[in-house]
Amino acid sequence: MCPKLPLLLVFFLYYAITSLGSDPDPVQDFCIPSTGIAACKNSSAAMVEDFVFSGIKFPGKFSETGLAATSVNVNIFPGLNTLGMSFVRADFEVGGINMPHFHPRATEIAFVLEGKIYSGFVDTENRIFAKVIEKGEVMVFPKGLLHFQMNVGDMPATILGSFDSQNPGLVRIPNAVFGSGIEEKLLEKAFGLNSKEIAKLRKRFAPH
Amino acid sequence: MCPKLPLLLVFFLYYAITSLGSDPDPVQDFCIPSTGIAACKNSSAAMVEDFVFSGIKFPGKFSETGLAATSVNVNIFPGLNTLGMSFVRADFEVGGINMPHFHPRATEIAFVLEGKIYSGFVDTENRIFAKVIEKGEVMVFPKGLLHFQMNVGDMPATILGSFDSQNPGLVRIPNAVFGSGIEEKLLEKAFGLNSKEIAKLRKRFAPH
Amino acid sequence: MCPKLPLLLVFFLYYAITSLGSDPDPVQDFCIPSTGIAACKNSSAAMVEDFVFSGIKFPGKFSETGLAATSVNVNIFPGLNTLGMSFVRADFEVGGINMPHFHPRATEIAFVLEGKIYSGFVDTENRIFAKVIEKGEVMVFPKGLLHFQMNVGDMPATILGSFDSQNPGLVRIPNAVFGSGIEEKLLEKAFGLNSKEIAKLRKRFAPH
Amino acid sequence: MCPKLPLLLVFFLYYAITSLGSDPDPVQDFCIPSTGIAACKNSSAAMVEDFVFSGIKFPGKFSETGLAATSVNVNIFPGLNTLGMSFVRADFEVGGINMPHFHPRATEIAFVLEGKIYSGFVDTENRIFAKVIEKGEVMVFPKGLLHFQMNVGDMPATILGSFDSQNPGLVRIPNAVFGSGIEEKLLEKAFGLNSKEIAKLRKRFAPH
Amino acid sequence: MCPKLPLLLVFFLYYAITSLGSDPDPVQDFCIPSTGIAACKNSSAAMVEDFVFSGIKFPGKFSETGLAATSVNVNIFPGLNTLGMSFVRADFEVGGINMPHFHPRATEIAFVLEGKIYSGFVDTENRIFAKVIEKGEVMVFPKGLLHFQMNVGDMPATILGSFDSQNPGLVRIPNAVFGSGIEEKLLEKAFGLNSKEIAKLRKRFAPH
Amino acid sequence: MCPKLPLLLVFFLYYAITSLGSDPDPVQDFCIPSTGIAACKNSSAAMVEDFVFSGIKFPGKFSETGLAATSVNVNIFPGLNTLGMSFVRADFEVGGINMPHFHPRATEIAFVLEGKIYSGFVDTENRIFAKVIEKGEVMVFPKGLLHFQMNVGDMPATILGSFDSQNPGLVRIPNAVFGSGIEEKLLEKAFGLNSKEIAKLRKRFAPH
Repeated sequence: MCPKLPLLLVFFLYYAITSLGSDPDPVQDFCIPSTGIAACKNSSAAMVEDFVFSGIKFPGKFSETGLAATSVNVNIFPGLNTLGMSFVRADFEVGGINMPHFHPRATEIAFVLEGKIYSGFVDTENRIFAKVIEKGEVMVFPKGLLHFQMNVGDMPATILGSFDSQNPGLVRIPNAVFGSGIEEKLLEKAFGLNSKEIAKLRKRFAPH
Repeated sequence: MCPKLPLLLVFFLYYAITSLGSDPDPVQDFCIPSTGIAACKNSSAAMVEDFVFSGIKFPGKFSETGLAATSVNVNIFPGLNTLGMSFVRADFEVGGINMPHFHPRATEIAFVLEGKIYSGFVDTENRIFAKVIEKGEVMVFPKGLLHFQMNVGDMPATILGSFDSQNPGLVRIPNAVFGSGIEEKLLEKAFGLNSKEIAKLRKRFAPH
Repeated sequence: MCPKLPLLLVFFLYYAITSLGSDPDPVQDFCIPSTGIAACKNSSAAMVEDFVFSGIKFPGKFSETGLAATSVNVNIFPGLNTLGMSFVRADFEVGGINMPHFHPRATEIAFVLEGKIYSGFVDTENRIFAKVIEKGEVMVFPKGLLHFQMNVGDMPATILGSFDSQNPGLVRIPNAVFGSGIEEKLLEKAFGLNSKEIAKLRKRFAPH
Repeated sequence: MCPKLPLLLVFFLYYAITSLGSDPDPVQDFCIPSTGIAACKNSSAAMVEDFVFSGIKFPGKFSETGLAATSVNVNIFPGLNTLGMSFVRADFEVGGINMPHFHPRATEIAFVLEGKIYSGFVDTENRIFAKVIEKGEVMVFPKGLLHFQMNVGDMPATILGSFDSQNPGLVRIPNAVFGSGIEEKLLEKAFGLNSKEIAKLRKRFAPH
Repeated sequence: MCPKLPLLLVFFLYYAITSLGSDPDPVQDFCIPSTGIAACKNSSAAMVEDFVFSGIKFPGKFSETGLAATSVNVNIFPGLNTLGMSFVRADFEVGGINMPHFHPRATEIAFVLEGKIYSGFVDTENRIFAKVIEKGEVMVFPKGLLHFQMNVGDMPATILGSFDSQNPGLVRIPNAVFGSGIEEKLLEKAFGLNSKEIAKLRKRFAPH
Repeated sequence: MCPKLPLLLVFFLYYAITSLGSDPDPVQDFCIPSTGIAACKNSSAAMVEDFVFSGIKFPGKFSETGLAATSVNVNIFPGLNTLGMSFVRADFEVGGINMPHFHPRATEIAFVLEGKIYSGFVDTENRIFAKVIEKGEVMVFPKGLLHFQMNVGDMPATILGSFDSQNPGLVRIPNAVFGSGIEEKLLEKAFGLNSKEIAKLRKRFAPH
C-alpha cells in the first residue's frame, strides 16, 4: 500500500496545480507547475520551453458551426501559471460562427489575422456593440460580457484572442442553457416557448 | 453661459460618481458620492443615513415571469461606493421564475427567506448544480456563472442575495441574446433554429 | 510508520485547505477543498450539496450577552473556498448585544430579518454612525471598522450578515484587549484604570 | 458668481485627491495629486521633491501616554498616491505606550531604531504574540489585527513603521469604544461594568 | 475669464482620464473616457467604434535598431480604460532588435505573426530563457522581467504582444540608464567603465 | 523506499511554501509556512518568534561597489508569508553605490538611517528624479521603476527599505544585461558598442 502513495500524489497533483493558482500579482518570477508535491517546479529546473507554446500554428478541428477554436489556458500551457494571461486561436470557415458566449473571468482582446468578421458584444443594459472588423483590426470584449463572431467574408478567417486570466473560462449560451439539464418548465417560462420547442432545443444541445 | 457650468458639472457628476469606483480594497473608511466636484462627500458630512437602506422592506413590482427583483447596487444606494458589496431582494409568485442570468462581476450568496425554490447554476464544463432549497437555506453561485431560480412551492417565496461587488451587473440570457439585435443568421446557426423561430424569439424579447 | 503517512496527510490537509485560499478573483469556477493532496476536489466530483448550507435555519446557542451568532465562513462551509464571500446569522434576545467588534478582512452588509436593532460603527476619525434599524432595513459596516448592535425592541431580533471575504475574521474588543494577556501596565495606561480595575476586567474576559 | 467657481473647484479638490485613490496596482508610474481638475498633476510637472519626505527627522509632540507618533500617509505626503505604501515614526518616552489599536487597511512592519519595546499583537483566536524587541529588530503586525507597544527600557525609544496601504487608517481602541458615543447600556453589557464605571471611561475619552 | 473655465476643464481632462484608471476588476461594463467632467462617457453614448482599434494594420516607422513598435495602450485606445488589457505591434527588419526592456506593470504574451525571432527574458536570479521562435509560436514574458528580441531570419518579422494592464509602461534599459542623467560617477562604478566610456554612452542615448 | 517519502515531502516543501503565496489580501490572520504537507503551520503552533526578525542589526558583507544589502523577504523571514510586505537593510561605504536596479513586484520606501545618499529613479518617460537625501528623510520609488543610490557623504551611510510585496524581486541592470548570456550581437546593437567592448562587459558580469 505504501508504494502506491507516490502514485496517488502524482495523480492528484495535476489537478492541484491547475486549480491552486489565482490571478493576483505573482509573488515569484514564475511558477511552472511541478510533478512533485510542490506547487511549482524548482525555479532552477525551469527551461525556456516552459514559456513557449507551439500548438496553434495551424487551425484545430472545425465544429458544426464552422469554428475551430483552441483555447490555450494554464491547463494546456502550464507556463502561464500565476502570470495572469492566456490566449486562443479561432479559425472560421466561410459563414462560420462563434456562438454567443462569455468568459466569466476575463476581458478579451481579439486581433483579426485574416478575413472579415462580424463581431460584437452585449452590455448589461442589453445594448449591442457590433460591427464587421477586418484583417489587422482589434476589438475588445469587456470582462464577463456576452459576445459572438461570424465570418461574413468569402474566405476563411482567423482571430487571435488574449485574456487577462490564466483560466478565463468559457460559457457557450446554447449549451449552458439547453444542454445542461435545467428544468424544462423554467426554460419554457424564460423563453416563452412551448414544451415541444424546448424539448427540441434540449435534444440538440444534450451532451453526447 | 457661465452660470450653466455648475449645472453641467452636477449633470455629469452622478455618472462620474457611480462609474469611478472599483472593487479593490478601499483607501479610506468610506466614500459617499458627493454632488460636488470631489468623488466623495467630505467625510465629516457623512451621516448614518448614508449607510442604511430602507427600500426593500416590501416586494417590488412583479414581472410577467412572476418575479419582483430589486437590485440594490451603488447606483441606488451610494453608501456602498468603494465598499465592495451590494445586494438584491427577489420575490417569486407561485411558479415564478428568475430566468437564466449571470452577474459578470460577482459571486452571489442567496438566502431563502420564505418558500421552496428550485435553484441552481451551470459551470463552465456545462454541468448543472441544482436543487430545491427551503426557508433558512443558503446557496452560493460562483462568480460569473449562469444561474436561475423557480418557486416550486405553493406559496410566494423570497430570496435575499448578496454580492461581492458594488455593481455586479446582470445579464438576462433571453434578453441579451434575442433582444439586443444580434444578427439573425448568427442566431439561427447558434441555436439551430429557422428564421421564423428566431424572428419569434427576437420579437418577444425586443425592447419596447 | 509508513502506513501512517496517509493519515498524516489527511490530518494536515484540512488546515491546508482552509488556509491556502485567498480572496482575489478565482481562477476556476469553484474549488471544493478535497480530502486528498490536491487543494480542490476534482471538479467532476463536486455536488450541488457542496454549494448549499442548511445550518442556520434556527438560532444557535445564546451567550451571556444575549447573542447567538453562527459565522458561516469557509471553515464550516467549504464550498465558499475561493469564492470571496461568507455570512453570519445573529439572533438577539430582548436587550441582547453584539459587543464592539470588527472583521479585519471584510465589509459587512447586515439585513434585519426581525426586530429593532440599535446598530452602528465608528470610523477612523472616531465618529459614530449609529441608529435603530428595523425589519427589512439594511446597514453596511465598512471594511475593518469597529461596529456593534443591541436589540432595543421588545421581541427577539435576527440579523443576517454577508461578508466580502471567505474568512473575514472576528475580533471582539473586550476579549482581545482584556482576555488575551496584554501586559497589565500597558492596559492601565491605555485606559487610565488602576491595577485593580484592570485585574477585574482581565479576570472577566480570561479564557476558561 | 461665476468667478467663484474655480475657487469651489480648488476647495473640493483636495478632498477628491485624497479620497479617489485605491491600493491596487497603479496604471501609471505615479500620480501626484494636482490642484486642478485632473486627479494627477501632469506627469511632466512632477519634481523629485514630490517623492521625498523630510518631516520625520525629529519626534513629534508627546501625548499623555508618552507617545509621539507621526503618520505619514497620502494625506500629508501626496507623492504616495497610487503607490500602495505609507509609514509612521513613533517615539516613546520611558514607559510610554502605543495603546491597543489596529489599522483597518494594512499590515505593518515595525523597525526598532532605538530602545527596548514590549511589542505584540492579538490574533482572531484571541492569542497574544508579544515580546520585548530591541534596536535593530523588526516585528510584523498582520493586516487588521489589534496591536500595541510599550517602552520597557530606561531610555527613550523609537520605531519606524511601514504599511502596505497609502492610507492604512488607525483605530485606537479606548477612544473608538469609549470616546465615540456608543450607547452606555451596550458598553455596560459588553464590558460587564456598571453605569458609573462606564461614565468615567466615556468622560476620559470624550473628544474635547 | 469665466468662459475660459470650460476650456481649462477640457484641457486637464484628458490627463485625468488616462491617469485615474487602475487595473483591478472594473465596477461597470466599460468606461470610455469622456470629454466632460465625468471620468466616463455616459454609457448610453458609447459606440462600437469605441471598442475597435484600426491603427496597427501596417508597421509603424522603423527606428535605428530596425524596430517599428506601436504600443496600443489606454492613452491611444481609450476604450481599454478599466478593462485591464492593452497590446503592441512590433515589426522587425532583418537583423532588427527590440533592445533589452521591461514593462513595470504587466506580463506580456508575444505571438509571432511572421518570421524567426530570437526572443527571451532574464529572471531575478539572472538566468536567461531565450530561444528562436517562429511564425505561429507564442512566448510569455513574466510580469516586470527584462526581455528582448532580434529578427534572426532573412525576412522581415512581426510580433503581436498582449499585456494584462491598460498601461503596462516601457523601460528601455539603454535609454533609462544612459539617457536619463544618472550621475556619471555612479554609472562608472556600476558598469566598471571609465569616464570616457560612460560619456560616450551618455551621449549616444541623450534625449534630443 | 517508503520511509523516504517524508524526506521527499520536506525537501519539496520549502520551495512550495515560498512559491505558493501571493500578495492579495490574506484569508487568514497569518500563514507561517509549515514543514508538513499543509501550506501553513497550524495557527495554534505559531509563536511570537515567527513574527520577529533579528538578522539586520548589523551590516552584511560589503560588495565591490561598497554596498552591503540584506533583503529580508519571505524566503528568509517566513512569517511574512501572505502579509504582503518585506524589507531590506542597505549599508554604504563612503562612495559606495547601489547600482541601477528595479523590483518587478513592489514599490519601495527608503528611510535614511545615517548619512547622505544621492538617490533617485527614472520613470517610463526616461525622466530622472534624483537628489541627495539625508538622515531622517524618506524617498519613495514607484512600483517597478529603475532606481539607484550612492553614498555622497564622508561617512558610512545606511538605508532601511520597505516593500509592498512579500517577495519583490531584484533585477540589477548590469548583471541582468551583461551577465545573463544575452546574444552578443543583440547587445552590440542595443548599446551601440563594438564586439570587444561588449565582450569586456560580459566578462566582468559573468557569473562565477
